[in-house]
Amino acid sequence: MTPEVTLRTATSADYDRIAAVVDDWWGRPVSHALPRLFLDHFHATSTVAEAGGDLTGFLIGFLSPSLPDTAYIHFVGVHPDCRGSGLARRLYERFFALAAADGRTVVQAVTAPVNARSIAFHSALGFTVTEPVVGYDGPGDVKVCFKRSLA
Amino acid sequence: MTPEVTLRTATSADYDRIAAVVDDWWGRPVSHALPRLFLDHFHATSTVAEAGGDLTGFLIGFLSPSLPDTAYIHFVGVHPDCRGSGLARRLYERFFALAAADGRTVVQAVTAPVNARSIAFHSALGFTVTEPVVGYDGPGDVKVCFKRSLA
Repeated sequence: MTPEVTLRTATSADYDRIAAVVDDWWGRPVSHALPRLFLDHFHATSTVAEAGGDLTGFLIGFLSPSLPDTAYIHFVGVHPDCRGSGLARRLYERFFALAAADGRTVVQAVTAPVNARSIAFHSALGFTVTEPVVGYDGPGDVKVCFKRSLA
Repeated sequence: MTPEVTLRTATSADYDRIAAVVDDWWGRPVSHALPRLFLDHFHATSTVAEAGGDLTGFLIGFLSPSLPDTAYIHFVGVHPDCRGSGLARRLYERFFALAAADGRTVVQAVTAPVNARSIAFHSALGFTVTEPVVGYDGPGDVKVCFKRSLA
């Protein structure tokens, strides 16, 4: 019997087990984009998914301190064996709900243009998707930007 | 006559000019650690220093959303020609004041152990400095951690 996947609010202490798996889950080096500060300071708006005590997914997001209408999703991962199960959608919907409860009206995120799976997923969830933006995260970087209304 | 250095609150639009100089100011590639989200979402607690319209320094910091007693300084840079002028201290003191005004009682930051200048500076400003922490920002990373009371 497959254990049920449960969601809970993240804690600072979840950082090490998340950082340990992200390169494997992405299939490329990405852990540099998730320093510990994201769990230390944004855990209250982040979510961990577990099944039988094992990490199956996570969402790291925050309510923008400087843009009072905006919530931002920084990093979302789902264990390769759990993809296609609807878990990513559950993680996003939990974040949408907590952002809306705080009065946020828009959710933003970005990804690399190579991340076709992410682009398709965000489109299916109702995010708009920009063309690739050259220099987005500094000289030489390219990102596509997602935006979704919570209204 | 040298133009006076003035400090002001940062805006999202300051990102590109900051990202353009950080690798030069540090003397090594560091721009990957400063994605645009830090200016988009934390500009209200960040500071830009200018002299005659030119960027001479900046401090990117935020009031931790999840740790109500804590403020976090992510990235601070001073133009190489302006070092030793007391500008970094002015940037930190401005941040200490805005953090204390919000009721924060502790300021945290981290740096790489190789950054001896940063470690000496934080010590002089009254921060405690940990031994190097292996795996701090993920497998293979090492950081030293700074902490300073605002009480």
